[in-house]
Amino acid sequence: MRSVVVHAPLDLRVENMPAATGPGPGEVKVSLAAGGICGSDLHYYQHGGFGTIRLKEPMILGHEVAGTVVEVGEGVTRVRVGDRVAVNPSHPCGHCRYCIEGHSNQCLDVRFYGSAMRFPHVQGAFRDEIVITQEQAFPVKHDVPLDEAAFAEPFSVALHAVTRAGSVLGKKVLVTGCGPIGCLTIMAARQGGASEIVVTDVSAPPLATAAKIGADRTLNVAENPDALPPYAPHKGYFDMTFECSGNARALVGALEVTRPLGAVVIVGLGGEATLPMNAVVTKELEVCGAFRTGVEFGWAVELISNRRVDMRPLLTATYPIEQAVEAFQFAGDKARAMKVQLSFAGAQ
Amino acid sequence: MRSVVVHAPLDLRVENMPAATGPGPGEVKVSLAAGGICGSDLHYYQHGGFGTIRLKEPMILGHEVAGTVVEVGEGVTRVRVGDRVAVNPSHPCGHCRYCIEGHSNQCLDVRFYGSAMRFPHVQGAFRDEIVITQEQAFPVKHDVPLDEAAFAEPFSVALHAVTRAGSVLGKKVLVTGCGPIGCLTIMAARQGGASEIVVTDVSAPPLATAAKIGADRTLNVAENPDALPPYAPHKGYFDMTFECSGNARALVGALEVTRPLGAVVIVGLGGEATLPMNAVVTKELEVCGAFRTGVEFGWAVELISNRRVDMRPLLTATYPIEQAVEAFQFAGDKARAMKVQLSFAGAQ
Amino acid sequence: MRSVVVHAPLDLRVENMPAATGPGPGEVKVSLAAGGICGSDLHYYQHGGFGTIRLKEPMILGHEVAGTVVEVGEGVTRVRVGDRVAVNPSHPCGHCRYCIEGHSNQCLDVRFYGSAMRFPHVQGAFRDEIVITQEQAFPVKHDVPLDEAAFAEPFSVALHAVTRAGSVLGKKVLVTGCGPIGCLTIMAARQGGASEIVVTDVSAPPLATAAKIGADRTLNVAENPDALPPYAPHKGYFDMTFECSGNARALVGALEVTRPLGAVVIVGLGGEATLPMNAVVTKELEVCGAFRTGVEFGWAVELISNRRVDMRPLLTATYPIEQAVEAFQFAGDKARAMKVQLSFAGAQ
Amino acid sequence: MRSVVVHAPLDLRVENMPAATGPGPGEVKVSLAAGGICGSDLHYYQHGGFGTIRLKEPMILGHEVAGTVVEVGEGVTRVRVGDRVAVNPSHPCGHCRYCIEGHSNQCLDVRFYGSAMRFPHVQGAFRDEIVITQEQAFPVKHDVPLDEAAFAEPFSVALHAVTRAGSVLGKKVLVTGCGPIGCLTIMAARQGGASEIVVTDVSAPPLATAAKIGADRTLNVAENPDALPPYAPHKGYFDMTFECSGNARALVGALEVTRPLGAVVIVGLGGEATLPMNAVVTKELEVCGAFRTGVEFGWAVELISNRRVDMRPLLTATYPIEQAVEAFQFAGDKARAMKVQLSFAGAQ
Repeated sequence: MRSVVVHAPLDLRVENMPAATGPGPGEVKVSLAAGGICGSDLHYYQHGGFGTIRLKEPMILGHEVAGTVVEVGEGVTRVRVGDRVAVNPSHPCGHCRYCIEGHSNQCLDVRFYGSAMRFPHVQGAFRDEIVITQEQAFPVKHDVPLDEAAFAEPFSVALHAVTRAGSVLGKKVLVTGCGPIGCLTIMAARQGGASEIVVTDVSAPPLATAAKIGADRTLNVAENPDALPPYAPHKGYFDMTFECSGNARALVGALEVTRPLGAVVIVGLGGEATLPMNAVVTKELEVCGAFRTGVEFGWAVELISNRRVDMRPLLTATYPIEQAVEAFQFAGDKARAMKVQLSFAGAQ
Repeated sequence: MRSVVVHAPLDLRVENMPAATGPGPGEVKVSLAAGGICGSDLHYYQHGGFGTIRLKEPMILGHEVAGTVVEVGEGVTRVRVGDRVAVNPSHPCGHCRYCIEGHSNQCLDVRFYGSAMRFPHVQGAFRDEIVITQEQAFPVKHDVPLDEAAFAEPFSVALHAVTRAGSVLGKKVLVTGCGPIGCLTIMAARQGGASEIVVTDVSAPPLATAAKIGADRTLNVAENPDALPPYAPHKGYFDMTFECSGNARALVGALEVTRPLGAVVIVGLGGEATLPMNAVVTKELEVCGAFRTGVEFGWAVELISNRRVDMRPLLTATYPIEQAVEAFQFAGDKARAMKVQLSFAGAQ
Repeated sequence: MRSVVVHAPLDLRVENMPAATGPGPGEVKVSLAAGGICGSDLHYYQHGGFGTIRLKEPMILGHEVAGTVVEVGEGVTRVRVGDRVAVNPSHPCGHCRYCIEGHSNQCLDVRFYGSAMRFPHVQGAFRDEIVITQEQAFPVKHDVPLDEAAFAEPFSVALHAVTRAGSVLGKKVLVTGCGPIGCLTIMAARQGGASEIVVTDVSAPPLATAAKIGADRTLNVAENPDALPPYAPHKGYFDMTFECSGNARALVGALEVTRPLGAVVIVGLGGEATLPMNAVVTKELEVCGAFRTGVEFGWAVELISNRRVDMRPLLTATYPIEQAVEAFQFAGDKARAMKVQLSFAGAQ
Repeated sequence: MRSVVVHAPLDLRVENMPAATGPGPGEVKVSLAAGGICGSDLHYYQHGGFGTIRLKEPMILGHEVAGTVVEVGEGVTRVRVGDRVAVNPSHPCGHCRYCIEGHSNQCLDVRFYGSAMRFPHVQGAFRDEIVITQEQAFPVKHDVPLDEAAFAEPFSVALHAVTRAGSVLGKKVLVTGCGPIGCLTIMAARQGGASEIVVTDVSAPPLATAAKIGADRTLNVAENPDALPPYAPHKGYFDMTFECSGNARALVGALEVTRPLGAVVIVGLGGEATLPMNAVVTKELEVCGAFRTGVEFGWAVELISNRRVDMRPLLTATYPIEQAVEAFQFAGDKARAMKVQLSFAGAQ
């Protein structure tokens, strides 16, 4: 079984690993077809981790995957052999306070594919086959391409972010940063009935993609730093802002153009931001974080499966697993690449 | 100035009334172009009122209207002569507890066009000209036909109903009753990102319209009374139900197929329903009402103005004001008519 | 091990049962001290069940209990031998949709002590000893009497009901029905900062208790049927109503005196109510159910343990387990009994 | 009529001003009895303003006042001569977007007593008499001392802050900073049913007061900087934190000890804080502001009027109006003064 393993910064290898054992009771084996490279995969590849989370042993990357069920264990009722499924990469403990309260994305003991937060690391899903629990398998309709199904995980992150701000129906929305998560957030906000979506980035190509997938207005704040301030009068124009750039200046700028009692949802991981406390106080802004996803994974699968959203404009390129290194190099070139996927043994 | 005046049940007349005086300071005069006949207009025409609300003097009907600004009073900044506007028919007092708390649709002293709740009655808007406050005027873009703009009020009622249930994004929705409000609720739920919309009615034509404007599945519960029960297992399939038929049996049936903690929003006015209290308790359902609209009026105008929704499939027929009686007769034929409008002096 | 077993309506026996096996890994054995008789226990005793739920085999009753840990299984970290604990009688599956979403009180496969909803029935906790999972054990401080700790479960039901209505701080509250759940709801509303609590009942003694534990005003609606209507003007006085009587007329009356957008939380199990749909619609009331409890079990334990609430005024009488029949007979006399408890082997 | 007028930093004078004209229709004249010195009053006195808000002309200070109605204008129904009232110092426009949406504390054109945000400044309420609109008058019961009634405004700010975090019932609460607003927030959280309240400050006397009025545990973080970190494990102990110190370090420290999805409400005005964005994202914290108050003014009056809260432990000293300068000097000494009030002509 071929796998994409990161050993150290810039040391990514396609290796043969022993096939997964199983499936045991309640488990299913999936032959993977497509896997999207996420920003966190890139961080492991480029830097060996982020913040205090560091690679301590070789780890298979990847958590945005879809494939076909090839074998089911005893007692499996949720899927059958032949089903095409998006794979939920998160396996919460089910017992901690957050699981019990319905917030499994905050699980104190979660296992998440391709993450070095635990040691031994949780091996990821960029490989030909994987054994998962049946609860992780979300079937899509038979005519849904698996490369689109592999967008379920990042799209569900965007849906979760949008949901954090309450109902987006009829609202004026700002999205700062138009990388993959920014664009998926635009699509989620459009899907949720935003009346107007304005987006910013510092680079033209992602803004062009944003315009294609639902942004009403695109602002290049590198070329035109004065593009946002006209939205500041009367205490701010936008009902909600989604910060998807990880840039502290974008966050601070958003505080000026978001209306009182509006939400500023931080989705992008970043460093430190110098927060003007008084702006938060006097405008009673809600600055909140959105992390991974929850029930929205199922929503994403349904919306993709019912073809209510079209992921294809976001898929820049697909590389066969053997060319994983080239794929990661290309994915790191933000000016050219939106989402880059790998293809595995499973048929599309 | 021609007006559509109801004098008594089945006694509707097109009469010449003196032109509106004004506009005074902060007011604007609108030359009306289009006006939709609402269920409450029909009730006044057919029965002289509903419940304890009864006609006590002749009253101009109508509150779903749009037109063109022809004159502005002193101090008006919100619109200019020539602007095309949807008219908000509600004029809340601004001082009562509900106005202060932001729920002007519950105003204790509201003036609402074409309503006999107060005496003297508040005269309605089915006439060639009307003088309104500038706050009631909501401009649409120049290329938006005014007959579509006249849908702003009923569409805003649907948006308000959907908003009562929280965010509809990713949710499974049932709409019972596919008259104009039912259909507009389907459109609002679709706009808000519902993942699946199932609808019921007892007549084929409204179901056909519902399918056209966004329902995923239509159930004729007159022909097939067993269509809904398959949604009952596991405590219920739907995340939220919108009861738009005014039929008590539809409400009670909805309790069985709405999931625990789900919302059952009653939009349609009806009589008494025999409520199984234990179903509400054990499933912790939220049975709530939706009445008129609030900030959603502005949302409706923007969504129509930006052409995110298309009202045309709902407009069955338009009659010139002189044929108001024929228009009301046709509007009362549910098998043939969805929304029927009158046209007035103002240009489309 | 002595147990209180119901065999058929009015056939309640104190029997010797084999001691519980265990505790297994993650389990603890509790020597029970006190157990409160709930309305559902009384229903099994008096009628053999309620609605479609019927006794099909002998069943130990009881689910409001507290005691002392006498043995802990392997891997238990949450409690130690000697700890005094309130016992959570609910054991949800942890895997169904509702468990995953954090609503374990709606679990599709819950095991709840002393309930005939499943077959074989789930045996209850009116016995000298019981083996529970460690997650069911909630320690109280050492100076908290166990008869007060045994109020944790019904008090948590009241806290859950109050929480269903949102924040009660500063709100005007109506409680209809002053039995044990009504009184505990009064205490929960008082604890949550209600500014005013008005309560109704048809009998003087529970109203007297209500006044003692926090009601600002008590209304005997049997003696004075016109006591509530003065709260109806201006669309209603109360921000929220808690219906704890199970009486349909109380529910319908509450709709008139609850303000627009207010909540009417139904806590009491009852029959059918003739609901005036238009009142719900035009006032946009939120009629919702509250069933059992969730995270509020922990809150109840903490509030009791920290002595923020005093349960003693609600405890009418305590009978030794041998006199269970007398206890049940007395508990059924609503004019004399508020909460009646049994005492078991465990020391207070 | 004597008034307390600030002319420049440290230039505070008690001056005779012409008596207020009126009351006009809908207005009432109040003979003031008591007025509390707020932090913003102190800022004007000590620094001539804060941030970009600066004194540009002499201004009467004060907005926390209570007194007795001595004259009512035409059409006044809400109060009568002789009524004892707390005065709401806020007079929103009633027409802007925020007023219409029920958030009058965010009014774009508010008039707030003793504020230099507008020019001419809005004169304050530290004077013998004032004419207000009837909507600003909130009667208290006859046995409520007016110095306690004068706490209505700052207590309502605390209630508003607590309400921003949702229901506090059963929650574990951290309050950072135990000045007047911190202490009132402790009281509001206690009133709302918090199960545990831990508080911090850098000085012993306010912590001693905090313990008296409801804090369960007080931490002097100047003497013991390691007092809070023990609350950090398992992603954080507190359900909600109220930042009342205006100190950026307190805010950042709160992020570590507030649980995922918990609220961090910033109440204290301060400068800039270096926010670790990733903590907000990964724990999905809700960092939000609370500013002034809304419907909570009425709640505060009722809770004080019904004697559910006792303000007396917070009132350090009362000075007659002639000694206003001494009062302001003493109020500025945080080690000795909690709340300092002035007394005016009106009888207590």
